[in-house]
Amino acid sequence: MSPPVRIRLSRLAELLEVELDGDGDCEISGLGTLADAVPGELSFLSNPAYAGQLADTRASAILIEERFRDACPANRLISPRPYVGFARATAIFHAGGAPEAGVHPSAVVHDDAVIGNEASIGPNSVIEAGASIGEGTVIGPGCIIGANCRLGPACRLQRAVVLYPGVQLGGNVRIDANSVIGADGFGYAFDGEKSVKIHHGGSVRIGDDVDIGAGTTIDAGVMGDTRIGKGVKIDNQVQIGHNCVIGEHTVICGCTAIAGSVVIGRNCIMGGASGAVGHITIADRVEVSAMSLVSRSITEPGRYSSGTGHMKTSRWKRVITRFQELDEMANRLQGLEKLIGKD
Amino acid sequence: MSPPVRIRLSRLAELLEVELDGDGDCEISGLGTLADAVPGELSFLSNPAYAGQLADTRASAILIEERFRDACPANRLISPRPYVGFARATAIFHAGGAPEAGVHPSAVVHDDAVIGNEASIGPNSVIEAGASIGEGTVIGPGCIIGANCRLGPACRLQRAVVLYPGVQLGGNVRIDANSVIGADGFGYAFDGEKSVKIHHGGSVRIGDDVDIGAGTTIDAGVMGDTRIGKGVKIDNQVQIGHNCVIGEHTVICGCTAIAGSVVIGRNCIMGGASGAVGHITIADRVEVSAMSLVSRSITEPGRYSSGTGHMKTSRWKRVITRFQELDEMANRLQGLEKLIGKD
Amino acid sequence: MSPPVRIRLSRLAELLEVELDGDGDCEISGLGTLADAVPGELSFLSNPAYAGQLADTRASAILIEERFRDACPANRLISPRPYVGFARATAIFHAGGAPEAGVHPSAVVHDDAVIGNEASIGPNSVIEAGASIGEGTVIGPGCIIGANCRLGPACRLQRAVVLYPGVQLGGNVRIDANSVIGADGFGYAFDGEKSVKIHHGGSVRIGDDVDIGAGTTIDAGVMGDTRIGKGVKIDNQVQIGHNCVIGEHTVICGCTAIAGSVVIGRNCIMGGASGAVGHITIADRVEVSAMSLVSRSITEPGRYSSGTGHMKTSRWKRVITRFQELDEMANRLQGLEKLIGKD
Repeated sequence: MSPPVRIRLSRLAELLEVELDGDGDCEISGLGTLADAVPGELSFLSNPAYAGQLADTRASAILIEERFRDACPANRLISPRPYVGFARATAIFHAGGAPEAGVHPSAVVHDDAVIGNEASIGPNSVIEAGASIGEGTVIGPGCIIGANCRLGPACRLQRAVVLYPGVQLGGNVRIDANSVIGADGFGYAFDGEKSVKIHHGGSVRIGDDVDIGAGTTIDAGVMGDTRIGKGVKIDNQVQIGHNCVIGEHTVICGCTAIAGSVVIGRNCIMGGASGAVGHITIADRVEVSAMSLVSRSITEPGRYSSGTGHMKTSRWKRVITRFQELDEMANRLQGLEKLIGKD
Repeated sequence: MSPPVRIRLSRLAELLEVELDGDGDCEISGLGTLADAVPGELSFLSNPAYAGQLADTRASAILIEERFRDACPANRLISPRPYVGFARATAIFHAGGAPEAGVHPSAVVHDDAVIGNEASIGPNSVIEAGASIGEGTVIGPGCIIGANCRLGPACRLQRAVVLYPGVQLGGNVRIDANSVIGADGFGYAFDGEKSVKIHHGGSVRIGDDVDIGAGTTIDAGVMGDTRIGKGVKIDNQVQIGHNCVIGEHTVICGCTAIAGSVVIGRNCIMGGASGAVGHITIADRVEVSAMSLVSRSITEPGRYSSGTGHMKTSRWKRVITRFQELDEMANRLQGLEKLIGKD
Repeated sequence: MSPPVRIRLSRLAELLEVELDGDGDCEISGLGTLADAVPGELSFLSNPAYAGQLADTRASAILIEERFRDACPANRLISPRPYVGFARATAIFHAGGAPEAGVHPSAVVHDDAVIGNEASIGPNSVIEAGASIGEGTVIGPGCIIGANCRLGPACRLQRAVVLYPGVQLGGNVRIDANSVIGADGFGYAFDGEKSVKIHHGGSVRIGDDVDIGAGTTIDAGVMGDTRIGKGVKIDNQVQIGHNCVIGEHTVICGCTAIAGSVVIGRNCIMGGASGAVGHITIADRVEVSAMSLVSRSITEPGRYSSGTGHMKTSRWKRVITRFQELDEMANRLQGLEKLIGKD
């Protein structure tokens, strides 16, 4: 939920770095879709499929490509990428302000921790010995920052985020509630009778401009760190195993499970609830579909999928019976081909 | 774990709204299965497959359908739906009491928050400015209630629940530990080089009588709210994306991943670890099997599945090789059919 | 992250119970892989595929099998299971110390709770009435221990762990951040109109030497307890439903979803993001592949899989079309076989 903001369209055009074509004095106080916007709101047209909604929109201004200039009945903000303009506008209208700087009296901050200028430490947070919190960084309520963690400037840990000792965050890192960074990875040596725990001596290093959603876990490395590259965006309930290396600007959608020691390239997209088995490498610019499992390394950019697509359960049951006999079926086909001399 | 309760069978019959056939003075102090109940306990017969256990049960009373009246060796509570009677009985024997009303001294409650009569705010909880907590609502230990949240009466947030600013709960909403409601959804506009964050201006609105399990995340809407209908039941570790709309009385089992802007109808069942890709619609009364992915809209009620069923890995490896050549195999079959003039 | 440790190789050999062949006075201050170790570090050779790295390693000592004794250029620690030796070494070099014993002043500990000798209760933790904390057990910051929980000795709850009332832990149980043990399972009786909640009267009982990762949830039993056997190791974001019984020394990898009333045998391995539907039994020594769903009971030890393997999305789309017609395809094949008299 966002506090009210009012801003003149001329100023908004400057902030969004787009061309204004219309009444610069028009006041904008919020954002809306073409279909739902009310007067006083800014909308946008990104997907041409919605161009038909231009005629009837009540938005006071619209972020729009040059080619739709004439079709736009409201004030225009002309941009080659209206959706990027809209994203930037959300930072103005939706992001809200930061809490007051300073340490809340209920927070438990160790004497040996270093709190940067203008940083904010929320109620009931715990900052352990040797941790350093960057300038302007906000630690929301209920966070636990382990010993010797180093957080860069302008980070935002929303609420109840747990960083284990030694985690390093770059600048402008955002982490949502209940995510856990730096717990020991899942490693055991079986001694013939029981599993002997491998304690992890590494930690997690997270680059600048990384976003991490709620309920996500990123494990520490055994030796050396798990590394999340600059600009990576990670959704909710993602699991990233020990010693993974995630390339810059890669996007990982919700509920994805990445086993240990996986190397993912730059500008990849892991679809929702996808997975990767351990110790594989995924090239740059690979896109994995929702709920697909990457079960061996991928060396070429491109789109990859697994799974069967959904169908009516009644049909699915018959199909699955056949599926499980697929090897025999292929052999029978080959037999027929031989029989009639085609093979 | 539940505190001890003792109740006479006649009173129990009244509370459960069922017919008593037996000794109303019999005291009941707990619940048990037909096989495991001890004297003093109430049991039930719901699945006729267990009727054979009637003869040997030691339960002092049994919730049972009319048709099994004569076969029942113990006191009878006659009901057309014994399992519903049993569920109601668990509220008596297992639910436990509520904690004392009032604000624990270790809680941090903003001066501008409104705490309803008989509400209870647990240790180390944080209630931010402008939040309002309904009458009799229990906020357990370690919860964080964001600014301007509105909680209806008789809600129960068990432990360490995080509500982001602006979340609205109806009455009688239950949320288990470590769930996060109202974090920003996962939305970015790619500017050709990096992902520009879309800050979310909406929130989450949750209807009456909704249950949410532990470790579940429900994201805020971009513009407008994510909406969870009345009576919806959501299990643990479920992810619901921004701007989803979940119809009344729908049931979502554990570890299900629902992408953004999905509309699910009423009285649906999403099986455990199932998924739905973004921007699709699922009709009323659809049942999706465990670990199935809904990859396009479903317009008809019914049961749907995806996946392959499990088999021995040795066989599976052969089948998968064939599967990946399935298109060629179909073409070869068609070729054969043509050859022998059947097509 | 671990504090610095220095230890003489002769002493290390004693602690690891391995044979020393080399300079016992050599001081070891850390662990490294063969490729990355620096002087002063101990390495290991477990997988023979890495034997070629022996020649160039800079490690000061190497845990190694007898057969590689002569090929080892550094001090040797001879062991039939070098990886187990390495795991034990991580407990020395990586595990770090325990926090000081005692109750942090910001913790909220009920007067009726019993805190064992040398136990440590971290900042902002909550210990409810009747809970008992075993000798030397560490409750990290932000944990919530429900009423009447019983924790054995030498347990370690890292941070923000939630135990619902009545949970029992054996000795030497480790639980990572934000895991939730003992919330009500997901059970409802449908009364024809709405879902009536089944309140759970059981709890969770966890054996000795169990490890549980971060963000994992284990639900309470309806009647009777959910039971996790001795030595079981559970990774992050795993869901275990009510009344499950997990056999001793079984290993459950991250993001696995196990529905209610599943019985899993001893020494099983559930691969990452795997699943099991409710009310089934899995035999001892079963290994389930990553992201495979166990959809019916497994009675024989062995390896099991489901799923399709990933492929290029372009090919996958054609394959899936064929897959969905697999029943018809099988019928056509049979038709051909009849036609040419082969069947």
